[in-house]
Amino acid sequence: MRAVVLGASGYVGGELLRILSGHPRLTVVQAVSPRNAGRPVHAVHPNLRGVTALRFSADDERADADVLFSALPHGSFMDVVAESAGRAPLMVDLSADFRLRDAADIERHYPDVAGKAAQAAKMAAGFVTGLPEMFRASLRDADRISVPGCMATAAVLALAPLAEAGLVGGEVLVDARSGSSGSGVIATTAGQHAERAGALRVYRPVGHRHEAEIRQLCGVPVTMTVTGIDAVRGVQVLLHVPAARPLTTAELWELYRQRYHDEPFVRLVASRSGEHRYPEPKLLSGSNFCDIGFALDETGERLVLIAALDNLVKGAAGGAVQSVNVAAGFAETAGLEFPGLHP
Amino acid sequence: MRAVVLGASGYVGGELLRILSGHPRLTVVQAVSPRNAGRPVHAVHPNLRGVTALRFSADDERADADVLFSALPHGSFMDVVAESAGRAPLMVDLSADFRLRDAADIERHYPDVAGKAAQAAKMAAGFVTGLPEMFRASLRDADRISVPGCMATAAVLALAPLAEAGLVGGEVLVDARSGSSGSGVIATTAGQHAERAGALRVYRPVGHRHEAEIRQLCGVPVTMTVTGIDAVRGVQVLLHVPAARPLTTAELWELYRQRYHDEPFVRLVASRSGEHRYPEPKLLSGSNFCDIGFALDETGERLVLIAALDNLVKGAAGGAVQSVNVAAGFAETAGLEFPGLHP
Amino acid sequence: MRAVVLGASGYVGGELLRILSGHPRLTVVQAVSPRNAGRPVHAVHPNLRGVTALRFSADDERADADVLFSALPHGSFMDVVAESAGRAPLMVDLSADFRLRDAADIERHYPDVAGKAAQAAKMAAGFVTGLPEMFRASLRDADRISVPGCMATAAVLALAPLAEAGLVGGEVLVDARSGSSGSGVIATTAGQHAERAGALRVYRPVGHRHEAEIRQLCGVPVTMTVTGIDAVRGVQVLLHVPAARPLTTAELWELYRQRYHDEPFVRLVASRSGEHRYPEPKLLSGSNFCDIGFALDETGERLVLIAALDNLVKGAAGGAVQSVNVAAGFAETAGLEFPGLHP
Amino acid sequence: MRAVVLGASGYVGGELLRILSGHPRLTVVQAVSPRNAGRPVHAVHPNLRGVTALRFSADDERADADVLFSALPHGSFMDVVAESAGRAPLMVDLSADFRLRDAADIERHYPDVAGKAAQAAKMAAGFVTGLPEMFRASLRDADRISVPGCMATAAVLALAPLAEAGLVGGEVLVDARSGSSGSGVIATTAGQHAERAGALRVYRPVGHRHEAEIRQLCGVPVTMTVTGIDAVRGVQVLLHVPAARPLTTAELWELYRQRYHDEPFVRLVASRSGEHRYPEPKLLSGSNFCDIGFALDETGERLVLIAALDNLVKGAAGGAVQSVNVAAGFAETAGLEFPGLHP
Repeated sequence: MRAVVLGASGYVGGELLRILSGHPRLTVVQAVSPRNAGRPVHAVHPNLRGVTALRFSADDERADADVLFSALPHGSFMDVVAESAGRAPLMVDLSADFRLRDAADIERHYPDVAGKAAQAAKMAAGFVTGLPEMFRASLRDADRISVPGCMATAAVLALAPLAEAGLVGGEVLVDARSGSSGSGVIATTAGQHAERAGALRVYRPVGHRHEAEIRQLCGVPVTMTVTGIDAVRGVQVLLHVPAARPLTTAELWELYRQRYHDEPFVRLVASRSGEHRYPEPKLLSGSNFCDIGFALDETGERLVLIAALDNLVKGAAGGAVQSVNVAAGFAETAGLEFPGLHP
Repeated sequence: MRAVVLGASGYVGGELLRILSGHPRLTVVQAVSPRNAGRPVHAVHPNLRGVTALRFSADDERADADVLFSALPHGSFMDVVAESAGRAPLMVDLSADFRLRDAADIERHYPDVAGKAAQAAKMAAGFVTGLPEMFRASLRDADRISVPGCMATAAVLALAPLAEAGLVGGEVLVDARSGSSGSGVIATTAGQHAERAGALRVYRPVGHRHEAEIRQLCGVPVTMTVTGIDAVRGVQVLLHVPAARPLTTAELWELYRQRYHDEPFVRLVASRSGEHRYPEPKLLSGSNFCDIGFALDETGERLVLIAALDNLVKGAAGGAVQSVNVAAGFAETAGLEFPGLHP
Repeated sequence: MRAVVLGASGYVGGELLRILSGHPRLTVVQAVSPRNAGRPVHAVHPNLRGVTALRFSADDERADADVLFSALPHGSFMDVVAESAGRAPLMVDLSADFRLRDAADIERHYPDVAGKAAQAAKMAAGFVTGLPEMFRASLRDADRISVPGCMATAAVLALAPLAEAGLVGGEVLVDARSGSSGSGVIATTAGQHAERAGALRVYRPVGHRHEAEIRQLCGVPVTMTVTGIDAVRGVQVLLHVPAARPLTTAELWELYRQRYHDEPFVRLVASRSGEHRYPEPKLLSGSNFCDIGFALDETGERLVLIAALDNLVKGAAGGAVQSVNVAAGFAETAGLEFPGLHP
Repeated sequence: MRAVVLGASGYVGGELLRILSGHPRLTVVQAVSPRNAGRPVHAVHPNLRGVTALRFSADDERADADVLFSALPHGSFMDVVAESAGRAPLMVDLSADFRLRDAADIERHYPDVAGKAAQAAKMAAGFVTGLPEMFRASLRDADRISVPGCMATAAVLALAPLAEAGLVGGEVLVDARSGSSGSGVIATTAGQHAERAGALRVYRPVGHRHEAEIRQLCGVPVTMTVTGIDAVRGVQVLLHVPAARPLTTAELWELYRQRYHDEPFVRLVASRSGEHRYPEPKLLSGSNFCDIGFALDETGERLVLIAALDNLVKGAAGGAVQSVNVAAGFAETAGLEFPGLHP
């Protein structure tokens, strides 16, 4: 199958090219980036030197594609989705454009696309959420896929088993930590190494936009705090959850094992001893795993859930490819076999 | 005044020596470290090369001291405090030995000193808490001072204005992040650079020992989570606080400004824009500041408090020296003038 | 083919297990680590959770293996190589035991095995150097392979084209920078995060042991300096080379392109502009590439060569697997396809 | 004495403000930064919150100053030095404008000021080099001071004792490593955290501009390589020096001790054992020390010198203040007492 990547010079675009370079069934025929048109892909993504001979192209007009991946900034794909539809039978959007189904949520959280909120909410209904762990059946015959946000993905996968079992007893507090690659490639003063190295930047103490996404997908009230940490890749979320009734650790293990037993990319990490007791994004760079752990307090009435993933892989490009694998009937792990490194 | 430092080869001990090397009124006459006896201080604390000519000594017997600082491990000073009392009119302990006043708390949180819990609780009553922002009056004629834990210090200073005003409406969730120097100098596999670099190690998702300390000092119920981050120095705490009644941001500013207006080491950091909107430990390495910020959600019923400090300074050695400055009638900022670096 | 890994709980051992987990033709049947016997592999190498179900075993006695990889510490495999020979037709050693052919070099650089220097030098003659870029033909029917040191591999690959062409005009100065994983898993005070983070530790300003290895492989006099840097993985070497005669940049490109044109794991990186002009280990974590660049001064008489690799992959486990691929007649890139990440 | 700082919103400007905030004899009366005019200093330099109440001003016209510090970009102060001269009896420039005395050197290394090279070289003759360790006598009655580059300062201090004793036997190779703060505050893609974190960026393998400065100050031929490392502050240089005749380590100690015995900011660091054997910039953040070490190879004919400093302190703002202390007859260490931190 032939793939076209829009927004190919960004970090998510580069990660799509990296993953697809090793995919047995998908071949990238166009890496679209008007501002880098003509340059070899490895000039922007130096890890792909010798891996792909592709050059960026200015537009996707001539491409005859089976899948279109859009890694364009928020608010951009929305404008071209109609015309793109005719040219690729399967379209995957990695921006926030079609994540929220409620126009009020869009207006509140994405002020820059506020004028198009109603339209976006309407279009979103035509997209299946690119989270196979929750929407595998619908993805099987999807023609439009919207990949959720990286922090939302981690939080939703951690929370889903509890939420589905009706065990969430109140508002969930999500404490998210995020690496610098999540801010994208555009140079800013705040993003300079001298400013960002060593930082613990609480850039969103209340009201983060992923709150709406998690609430929409899990059906429970959520409040969220985000801190930028000194890492390039990686998201870790801690969820503080009031239980609907007292729980036991054994019960939790049973619940999570059953829910994720057959999932190729969800691992449970909750050890009583050792150095690697709970999920850490460090281990997950380049891998498509989402690791999930949990701890129960003495009363059994309050839980801490911990989830980690690579924001550019399971939180973006990897989740997109996994979803396409499902939609296209490929092996779900195709192209996503890299297990991550230690140390 | 003459000072003796016990446990002088640890990180807190080294920081005491560093701070006291620039103190106008206090001079270290003995740096006690049996295992390094005879070695120059700079062999262990290389930043002090050319700054002090002191050598470690094996014991403190011959020292004629006005102040004794103990940076010994938890459970050690407890055993020698009685005999030490005769030799130094002012004693400052930086371990956890005399922090908790409740024997049950001690038994639960410090299993290694559990056998001595009742005794410790009793002795603790003779110690004033080394937190001038809360106990300045008592410190003025103290002869025994117990310095609180680094994360407790940050959390307590953030929470105190609200707690004192009766504005805390329920259990407070403390999300703490801590650098590697907090683990001390003893080599462990988990603490090796290859394992610890890049880590986000949730090593205590529920039931951290500082919970008891914060509850004791602020009188509000607290639950706490700690994550080890990729930093050497620094503690940052986020406190999620349910308000007793809806609050406004203006009211919060008024409350915190009034409470901390005259404090030399507490700064309020809560900007609406810019890169440095909330407290970050990065800026505080080597300084005695505790920066405090806050954000209110849309309803005014939930607050996020943010505090940061250098765990070895305001969270240990600096807090100790500040307390001694108060007790001895020195300028409270003596020896603690370093403002920290940027970038 | 069935593989046994000795020293499987170290960093190189773990990397062998990681690479072999994705190898189409080699299967690990035993991961030997007496001190971890019975524990699941992922307890020590957490990235392999869900990737392999293997447990460590205490010894390799029962294993029926086609290939034996030894990632034991220096001086250990030497003692068991004779008895091991009967059990595996192909043996690959990743320690320094059989790298040096000259007993005097061994005595000087490996004092801990000095007593066995003559024996080691003699045994070394039976080993083919595991560097396919130089010894591919000999590796094709090798039964014993000795993988060179990580810094030596980088330096040798950078220097070989010049040395083979007789263009090295004098002593070469090798300035090497190395991450912390090169120091192994044993906990030391110097290796603690608080000490090692941010370090630029010149731990070997003159006389590093890899000097002898580079000299042996390239036939030119070498002097070497090593600095430990704040990275977990990665080696970068800068070689300052006096040219035998004035050279031009075009000539260098021609020389290096011709030499490495068909090599799957050597890339030339020497751009006049852009952000990624010369080799950087950061891009190579987990990949088997060795990137090589060069710059010529104005006179054309002095060159700076730059090489980078992942010390645990191309500098150890990856180089070993690549060599076995050659020896066993597999595709040379089998199991080694991961291209590395950016950013 | 009253001081004015031009270019006060850059990193060097901020460091001048930080150091002068604790200076007993110098008070900053104007922090000039047209683009930040009116904003409080702490909005740009958050470490100075509560330390200074100063606001940036748009120009220096009204300032009645005793000392003018210029931390403007290269090529800027040159244009205003004449008019500034009438307003401040002592002027200190921290740019490269008046470092080089040879117009050809300026043309080659500073292409952006090439048109003004002859003029700059002529003006440079009126400036004393701000390196008290070499020019203390001349600084005593200087009215114009030019502070050398950070890497040049480290290299010159390391090399001077040997060069002055005629012991340098040939071309010296300087291998410099530099943190990200040396690149200044302007946002660039290459300087973003995601790109720069973990980097070992060889951005100048041959022909660095500091070569000319070192040659000018030490009178020996120099060739230099610079690598950007993953640190915010700090410069470390390794100098590979051919000795004019075989030397002994004892002789070196004698030479360096004698040369630097009375220097308050030069420390010798060259231990045979321990963890902190050679100079490391990590220990020097915020301090004005330049640490110097050396190692001799077996023949005694080749030396490795190692020097480290904080590029913003001893390599810029600290060197400037130290020079002014000398010129103004203050204690040379005034304002520069901070010893640096460990760990």
